[in-house]
Amino acid sequence: MQKKNLEYIARLREAMKKQGIDAVVVSGTDPHQSELPPHHWRGREWLTGFWSGNGTNGTAVVTADKALCWTDSRYFIQATEQLKGTGFSMMKEDGPEAVDLIDWLVENMNEGQTVGIDGMTFSIAYAQRMQQELSDNGIKFNDNFPQFDFIYPDRPERPKNKLFIHDEKIVGETVASKMERIETEIKTELANAVLLSSLDDIAWATNLRTAGDISFSPIFVSYLFISADRKILFIDEEKITDEVKCHLDKYNIGVMPYDGVLNFVAALPKDCRLLIDPAKTARGVYDKIGCTSVFGGAGIAKLKSVKNDTMLANLSTAMEKDGVALTRFFMMVEKDYPSGKLTEVELGKRLRDLRLADPSCVDESFAPIIGWNEHGAIVHYEATEETDVAITGDGLLLVDSGGQYVFGTTDITRTVALGTPTDEQRHDFTLVMKGHIALSSIKFPEGTRGAQLDVLARQFLWNDGKAYYHGTGHGVGFFINCHEGPQSIRLNENPTPLVPGMITSNEPGLYIEGKYGIRCENLVVTEPWKTTEFGRFMQFKDMTLFPFDINLFNTAEMSDAEIEWVNDYHIKVRDRLTPLLSAEEAEWLKAKTQPLIKK
Amino acid sequence: MQKKNLEYIARLREAMKKQGIDAVVVSGTDPHQSELPPHHWRGREWLTGFWSGNGTNGTAVVTADKALCWTDSRYFIQATEQLKGTGFSMMKEDGPEAVDLIDWLVENMNEGQTVGIDGMTFSIAYAQRMQQELSDNGIKFNDNFPQFDFIYPDRPERPKNKLFIHDEKIVGETVASKMERIETEIKTELANAVLLSSLDDIAWATNLRTAGDISFSPIFVSYLFISADRKILFIDEEKITDEVKCHLDKYNIGVMPYDGVLNFVAALPKDCRLLIDPAKTARGVYDKIGCTSVFGGAGIAKLKSVKNDTMLANLSTAMEKDGVALTRFFMMVEKDYPSGKLTEVELGKRLRDLRLADPSCVDESFAPIIGWNEHGAIVHYEATEETDVAITGDGLLLVDSGGQYVFGTTDITRTVALGTPTDEQRHDFTLVMKGHIALSSIKFPEGTRGAQLDVLARQFLWNDGKAYYHGTGHGVGFFINCHEGPQSIRLNENPTPLVPGMITSNEPGLYIEGKYGIRCENLVVTEPWKTTEFGRFMQFKDMTLFPFDINLFNTAEMSDAEIEWVNDYHIKVRDRLTPLLSAEEAEWLKAKTQPLIKK
Repeated sequence: MQKKNLEYIARLREAMKKQGIDAVVVSGTDPHQSELPPHHWRGREWLTGFWSGNGTNGTAVVTADKALCWTDSRYFIQATEQLKGTGFSMMKEDGPEAVDLIDWLVENMNEGQTVGIDGMTFSIAYAQRMQQELSDNGIKFNDNFPQFDFIYPDRPERPKNKLFIHDEKIVGETVASKMERIETEIKTELANAVLLSSLDDIAWATNLRTAGDISFSPIFVSYLFISADRKILFIDEEKITDEVKCHLDKYNIGVMPYDGVLNFVAALPKDCRLLIDPAKTARGVYDKIGCTSVFGGAGIAKLKSVKNDTMLANLSTAMEKDGVALTRFFMMVEKDYPSGKLTEVELGKRLRDLRLADPSCVDESFAPIIGWNEHGAIVHYEATEETDVAITGDGLLLVDSGGQYVFGTTDITRTVALGTPTDEQRHDFTLVMKGHIALSSIKFPEGTRGAQLDVLARQFLWNDGKAYYHGTGHGVGFFINCHEGPQSIRLNENPTPLVPGMITSNEPGLYIEGKYGIRCENLVVTEPWKTTEFGRFMQFKDMTLFPFDINLFNTAEMSDAEIEWVNDYHIKVRDRLTPLLSAEEAEWLKAKTQPLIKK
Repeated sequence: MQKKNLEYIARLREAMKKQGIDAVVVSGTDPHQSELPPHHWRGREWLTGFWSGNGTNGTAVVTADKALCWTDSRYFIQATEQLKGTGFSMMKEDGPEAVDLIDWLVENMNEGQTVGIDGMTFSIAYAQRMQQELSDNGIKFNDNFPQFDFIYPDRPERPKNKLFIHDEKIVGETVASKMERIETEIKTELANAVLLSSLDDIAWATNLRTAGDISFSPIFVSYLFISADRKILFIDEEKITDEVKCHLDKYNIGVMPYDGVLNFVAALPKDCRLLIDPAKTARGVYDKIGCTSVFGGAGIAKLKSVKNDTMLANLSTAMEKDGVALTRFFMMVEKDYPSGKLTEVELGKRLRDLRLADPSCVDESFAPIIGWNEHGAIVHYEATEETDVAITGDGLLLVDSGGQYVFGTTDITRTVALGTPTDEQRHDFTLVMKGHIALSSIKFPEGTRGAQLDVLARQFLWNDGKAYYHGTGHGVGFFINCHEGPQSIRLNENPTPLVPGMITSNEPGLYIEGKYGIRCENLVVTEPWKTTEFGRFMQFKDMTLFPFDINLFNTAEMSDAEIEWVNDYHIKVRDRLTPLLSAEEAEWLKAKTQPLIKK
């Protein structure tokens, strides 16, 4: 089939010519800086032909004679393949051959030429950096070139899914209380109003959700303005049901059309000091603001990251439901594996069905990663019809998946042996688990950051000359995004301390190229431990409920304390899940949670 | 005795009035941002009466009606005492009651008033921040108020100690080679010359040292200018012997008067791009620079931090000499302790004598910290005639000390039990040592920063609800400063990776207020371990040679690997020191290095 991308590029170049643009930078995100934007904003995928149903990461640059598409190492193989015959060449965002997009522009554009962007799809911070570096080199910058308005004839509409209320009883806090806390944050930043652009912040603040605007997350397209005497949700009105209207009225939140936000911020009174987050707010919105802008707002993301006791109790319920689904899933895998007919894609479908069988589960929380043997070693593997393999022979199966339950978001990775594992596999699994356990068990003083704890999960691998290079832990939302800031547990510094109520993943791994991958992931909540003469100490509590594969532990390499951790965890899993299982399932779980015994 | 400080303050206020200065900020450092400045620049100590022979940390502010002296928590007790009757009140630089000096100025000065400083004694970076925040608040700034030129009649002269050559054979690198590497750094920063102000950088670059300019470090007062075709040492000419002149001539390094640096930088040609480090260069120098200034220069500090194989071999010799001195010291302590006549101050003198008995040891590397029982719990304790106590009864003795050997700088802390230790002391000591061992044993991938590894030393204390809050490790110079950047192993982020050749301390501790202190410190060198499919890995090698007190370990709380680490280390210490000891000393050391046996 002939690809049409060359035609799209030609159409884009014509539009550029008309507007006096010499190079256009095409964003891969939306006015809300979403990780996975709705299809309406996936013009970059349409233009370049580098795409997937779940969204990809990429930014394109088109000049009079070049068409390039930047992406990160997760997508190098896929992008190289998909970009063939489109006229686009792939550029690397990370890794040893990385080229910085802005540096590329500076080097390849001439003084006096103009770079154009659609300011609505770039953050203030990034656009600012681009503009600064271009202007330092005599290159002009036009942030008002909404290229897809000109060249994209059958562009999908903005999503019109209806909102629903995320029950106050589940989230344990009224919208009124959240508004009050946001208003305190506004004052702290010496502002008197805020414009929220980030969709997860808005869903959290309003106790509202939808299904379908964005894959794997129940957030919805909107902006939210908050000041002491005026609160406005900017949203397509088709999305508002009568019930939702009542909910908004109750909290004095008015509704205005989504597109109205630009005129609204333009008309703000001069004495308004509008708090905006430069990393989350579109440059195009910033351009319109008619009052003083105050950069900040990280405090609001922090409010969202701390889960209250009601949320934690509900997440505990979601974890039980997830554990039940996984019990059924892995029982099925074990039963059907000898047939040789299971494949990675098939397993993905079955796992989805098992999770969504519970009415409180509205979606998966991300595209599941199900990798058999060498596929498990590809960190962001997504099985497709092209890559799919049958699960046969001996090996390791890595399953990283999660659910969007109204009671909370789950994210769990288990690695299980099918057939007989090798000593090498058991050794490697044990090293990964020793790190997992060390991180889960650590007590730490108030103020400790994730980057300080990260090595605990890596130390045993490092001491064996092995390593994984992804983060050890990311924040997790509550029936919002599975990836949520501001905290993390990574190699890189992140100044945010881990505070009680934060949900973070604990997911060390090891990837032996061409052979197998191992990752062991639970979600943990930070909670107070005790106060001593040395200060206030915190600890983690494991929330996830599903056993690790006891066949993969080499107890000869484990300390008594490590063995006890596994056995205690497995008792907890069994105690919590058994009442929810059939007799046969309970029996299976019992076998899977037999205590490890030191050899 | 009547203190004269009120008179000094009156004299200062008169000078301020004449120059139109409403508040003066008096620095505690010199034009080289030295941690311990020569007496010539200790005007702040003279003015405030808050002082010690080894130098203190403090910054004073005098206005028409206020006289304040800021210092950090190490000095709160001492400063409170010494400032009595001087007219100065103490202000806290850190801790919960900290007040930022610049914030204080902003809040207490009126619009239109003027703050004055001696620009030669403030770094560019700090002065810039001060000027910016003052000017944001309508307060004027005058950086040309050298207050001590007006008010300090018997000011000590600049030190005139003669330089000597630090043998090329000991440092393993010619000055020519260092100049070449510095010139490469200059080019990397897109500059064509550099002005070094930091005295340890200059001593390193020139292979020159002195004795007496500054306590505990053989560095000397000077500036060094380096470009491809011109190298000039700005220094008081009395310091240059004929031999040193020959050495400088050999490397085409000219000599100009110390004070000439200001006219020199003023007259630099317009096309000169002068690299200066804004944290290490005086604002007063910066003000004079007549060409383009390029801020940077961290790369040069990095060159200094990486020790070559010759330096490491020589440091190994210094460690042997230090181990011998410590063997004699602790043997003496054990022998004389029953008399009840030993005191902390007396021990300090004896330790100094034992170290300086070796002709290659020219000084101690810092004022030794010798703390008996509750004094050991004061992290920066310095025994004085007033605080001194006799070493009697049961308890723990903490000895943190080091020597400036021409073969390298040492820094070691040992905590030993005299009499019978309690179970609590043995438990706490074991926790500290478990952390010490975990840090010493870790292997880590290239690029790892100290802040990532820091938790390894703290984890066992944290898991017991205990903590220490000082850094775990600092860089150590080679016959220069005992505290040297850029690397560190601390709670706080520091972006510098640990690279082969860096010498860093490993010194976890625990301080039980009113009872005892424990600290266990070795110096370790980073070295390559091995390269695997996962990358290049590094490890630490312990350089320090002296046993830990085997009576303080509780082996029941230790893993086999931890016990093995101690035993292996003790075998190494015995093997290396025994040939240098008398028969009686060797016998003592043998007893102190008996293997730990698991109970």
